[in-house]
Order: sequence, then structure tokens, then C-alpha cells
Amino acid sequence: MNSVAKEPLLTAENLKDAEARIRPHAHITPVLTSSYLDERVGGELFFKCENFQRIGAFKFRGATNAVFSLAPEELERGVVAHSSGNHAQALALAARLRGTRATIVMPTTASAVKVAAVRGYGAEVVPCQPTVEDREQQTERVLEETGGTLIHPYNDRRIIAGQATAAMELLEQVEGLDLILAPVGGGGLLSGTTLAAHHFSPSTRVIGVEPAAADDAYRSLATGQIQPSVDPKTIADGLLTSLGDLTFAVISQLTESIVTVTEETIVEAMRTVWERMKIIIEPSAAVPVAALLEGAVDPAGQRVGVILSGGNVDLDRLPWTHSSV
Amino acid sequence: MNSVAKEPLLTAENLKDAEARIRPHAHITPVLTSSYLDERVGGELFFKCENFQRIGAFKFRGATNAVFSLAPEELERGVVAHSSGNHAQALALAARLRGTRATIVMPTTASAVKVAAVRGYGAEVVPCQPTVEDREQQTERVLEETGGTLIHPYNDRRIIAGQATAAMELLEQVEGLDLILAPVGGGGLLSGTTLAAHHFSPSTRVIGVEPAAADDAYRSLATGQIQPSVDPKTIADGLLTSLGDLTFAVISQLTESIVTVTEETIVEAMRTVWERMKIIIEPSAAVPVAALLEGAVDPAGQRVGVILSGGNVDLDRLPWTHSSV
Repeated sequence: MNSVAKEPLLTAENLKDAEARIRPHAHITPVLTSSYLDERVGGELFFKCENFQRIGAFKFRGATNAVFSLAPEELERGVVAHSSGNHAQALALAARLRGTRATIVMPTTASAVKVAAVRGYGAEVVPCQPTVEDREQQTERVLEETGGTLIHPYNDRRIIAGQATAAMELLEQVEGLDLILAPVGGGGLLSGTTLAAHHFSPSTRVIGVEPAAADDAYRSLATGQIQPSVDPKTIADGLLTSLGDLTFAVISQLTESIVTVTEETIVEAMRTVWERMKIIIEPSAAVPVAALLEGAVDPAGQRVGVILSGGNVDLDRLPWTHSSV
Repeated sequence: MNSVAKEPLLTAENLKDAEARIRPHAHITPVLTSSYLDERVGGELFFKCENFQRIGAFKFRGATNAVFSLAPEELERGVVAHSSGNHAQALALAARLRGTRATIVMPTTASAVKVAAVRGYGAEVVPCQPTVEDREQQTERVLEETGGTLIHPYNDRRIIAGQATAAMELLEQVEGLDLILAPVGGGGLLSGTTLAAHHFSPSTRVIGVEPAAADDAYRSLATGQIQPSVDPKTIADGLLTSLGDLTFAVISQLTESIVTVTEETIVEAMRTVWERMKIIIEPSAAVPVAALLEGAVDPAGQRVGVILSGGNVDLDRLPWTHSSV
């Protein structure tokens, strides 16, 4: 009897194409180490600094791959997204670099700094009420008016392929990784990371880390179907969303497991990285570090890649001086 | 008539010896760039990240060179310093690595975190009242009791040679630098940087940057003799001290100039580096960046090295949320 393995969503060739496509635009981000953290957790840690990526987060990779994959007739009409986070800035910058226009639907509750950043990259910002209904209505309207292409923040092959390039680089920069940890929100980064390891370093395991207070991906894997993220209350505001069908398919097929961490450890991990490594990471990026501090993942004797997903933080509202949840 | 140039305090050979001596212990720190800051100031900037150095500051270089220069009989008796800042941690760690003991006289006003860090490296901490008199009295007492060697934080050839290694590395990492900017407090880093450029890249100019609120080095150069730092009130708490005779000799002989910057721009520069480069620098390290933002130095069309001297910050007291001066 033969068991027939399902083809993964994206081939090695797809990922290499994405890497070539974004290469002229994205930074090859450095990998940093910390002897303090190595000693503390008992493994060898390699931190892939996507906080140093353009717009301050890995999201630039996926957005750039998506925008630079568009056909000429699509470029004439531009791209559209709804996002209050890093995807908004990423898509705005990618569109500018490609010479096409971006329209971003952003909730009226989005911070003025973020709205200004998106406009600063030349995108048009369309405000919506902070409800799913109005967001979708405004997005539909913009799509009709512009004929533009909607770029979903994670449930999109081009986005997943773009996010995979972070782990592809990491696997080139550091030999013999036993394990890679990535945070999971909508699953774009985790599914990309998983596919990168699957194709280019099959002996490297990939584990997703999620706040216990937004554990929909964990529950989705446990139950075998996508579970919605219901009223998540976590400081890791990049990880609020639910998995999509594409990201769920990859993660449920190929990711080793998903573990969860407490809010307290996320804040401790964030502060520890700031204090000891002297780099700024956002709460979502601290989530995999928290898994190591908390013992949710045991790195003993292993070489562990940790994807520090971003560094966009409001410096006037730090979690150790303000309650942000 | 011949003009006879004075021999500089340290030879190229002295500096190379220091580099070889600290090599097994100190990090080769990375150089980062920022397209945002390049555009904003109109030059090409190369940031030497001594905030990533061990103990979080360049001070580890000088302390290590000094401790590893000691004779065996000196090692038996250990080293002594008075410091409430980065020199205390640097000397404590260097002594531990060399297997000798360190005794650090620290004012009772020093933060508990800093005292704990120094003790954490295995040094003995001797408290003193926060007055010059008691500090010197306690230090004298410790020196008598232990027979140890006093390691001055900057007015010491071994320290200056050690600090020079940051610029030596930078000059190897980045070709064709027109200019290097370094902060100036006691002048250890600035005189070391100046000597490094003098010996290894004579066409690279070196400018020191100082808070206007602690402009004793600026006044010392202007008057041709060491001016004391009188009641300085600056957020750049690593730059409070006056020049020593050795650092003054080098700086007045070889440094191109010293410029000053306002407190407001120091805070702006610090925050800008945090936000745009996603790295943590302390206020003293922001001082050269402030010179670029403020136009005290014009980098137009130049390749400029900026030594980011350290990243030790109390994350509970940030200058944009608390008044620290």
C-alpha cells in the first residue's frame, strides 16, 4: 500500500521565485545572538531580526512579492487592503516601489501615527468604522470604484511565499538549525516558515507560538478545523486574527505543533530582549521568545532559530509602564 | 625651519596590541545603516553599534585591555575603580574574565539595578556618599587595604587604547569614511577614536560631540586648557566628567573639533534611532546623532561613521515619558 503525500501549497520553485522577486527591495536582515539568553534557556538561539526589515516588520516581504507579481493590467488599477497594522504600511510601500497605487481601509480607531505612516508612503487611506460590517462594506466599495486587486494580509499564496523568504534567509545564514519558532496570528509567517523548512531543510522542525489569550490556531490544530479568534485580549496585537484556509492547510499538514504562552511572559520576554539585546521588538515578536522563557518549548542542546517578526511599538505606551490589554 | 610634530600618546603598535589583547573577549560589533536617516541628513551614515558590545557599551574594550595588561603580581591584588556607570560593569566583567578580583566604589545614589549588575559579575561593591571627598576617601582606603591597581575610567593609556579598537574595527568594516563622530565625556572614546583615525586612516576627520549643558571639553579646546565640568545638567549621564590630561593632550592635538548639541535634540535623536533603527541606545550615544539632526555637523555628500557608544537605559524612566534632567 502506498501513502500519497498531499502536495504542499507552494513548491520550492515558488519560494525561490518569491525570493528573487523581493531581493532588489527587501533587506537581508541580520541574525543576532545573545549569550545571556542562551545560558538562560540552555540552547543556542539565533534571532532573525525582521524588526530591521523595511517598515519594521516581515510583512514587507509578502506585500512586495504580491505587488511585484501583479500583471500590467492589474498594476493600472492598484491594490487594496484593509489593515490597521503592519500589512497596511507594507502594502503602501510595496505599491510605491512598484509605481502603482494602494488604497488602505483603516478603522477610525487606528493610531494617528500609523495612518500618517501609510499616507507617508503615498497610499490613500479610507476610514471605516471599527466593525467587521463597515470594514467589508468600505473595502467592497473601494474595490468596485478602483477595480483594484485585494491583497489579503495572509491568506494568499503570494503573501505566504513572500513571508517564507525570512526563514529561507535564516537557513542560509545559520547552518544546522534543529528548530525554528515563529509567532502565529493569521498564519502567513508560520506557514511560510514551515514551507521554507520543508523544502530547504527538512530536518528543521517548525513550531508556532501563540498567546494563550488568542489561542485560535492552537484550537484549530487540536480540532482539525479552523476555529475563529473570539474577542482575543492580548498585548500581541499582531496576532489577533484567525487562520485562513490556505494557512490552515499548510500548518495542519506540516507544522510540528503550536504552543501557547501567557501575557505575563510575553511582556517579560519583550523587556528581556530590549534590555539584554538592545533591540526593539514589538509584543508579537516577543511571543516565541516567551515560549523559551516559559519552557513551552525546550531548546536544550538545540540550535534554535527565532523569528523576531517586527519592531513597531508606540514608545509612549510601553507594556511595563502602561496596561495595554 | 623645521616644525617638529609631537609624538601622539599611543603608537599604531600600541593600538594593534590592544586590539589583539581584547579580541578573544570583546564582540566585533555590527555596523548598521538607516536609509531614513541618510535621507534626512543628506549623508551616508554608518552606525557602529557599541550598544551591542558586552555590558552594553564600548567601556568593555578599555577595561578589558587594562585588566589583560596587568602583570601577574598586580593580578594577585586585583583592580579598583570608582564609577556609577558603564565603567563599573566593564571592569567587573573584565576582572572576572581574567580571574582577578574587582572592587568598585559606588555612590549610595547609584541605582539598585546597576549595583546588582556589578555584583552579578562577581565584583565587590563598596558604597560611598555621593561626594567627591567620600568617594576619594573610600577609594584610597580600598587601595590601601587591597594593594590593588586603580583603573581610571578614561585618563589611562590602556583604557584609551582599548576604546580606540571600536574605531579600528569601524575603519575595517566601512571603507572611505570621511568623518567619524563620537561623544565626549572624559574623552576616552574620543581620544581613542582620534588616534585610530590618525594611525590607520589619516584622511578621516574626527569630531567630538558634547551636550551644550556639559560643554567643558568644548571650552577646554577653546581656551587651550582643561576646563572643569561644573554642575552639568544633561540627560546624557555618561558625559558628565571633565577631560583628563592624557585625553586632553590627544584631543587638543589631533581631534578636528568639538561641537555641542541641545538637550531637546539629544532626546529627539535617541527616540528617532529607537523608532527608525529599532535599536536601543542610551542618551549619551544619541549625542553624535543629535549633531547631525541639528546641523552642528554637515554630512552632505560624506560617508560618516557614528559611534553609538552604549545602550544601557532604565526602561522604566524614558526621557520622553519622564523628565530625567
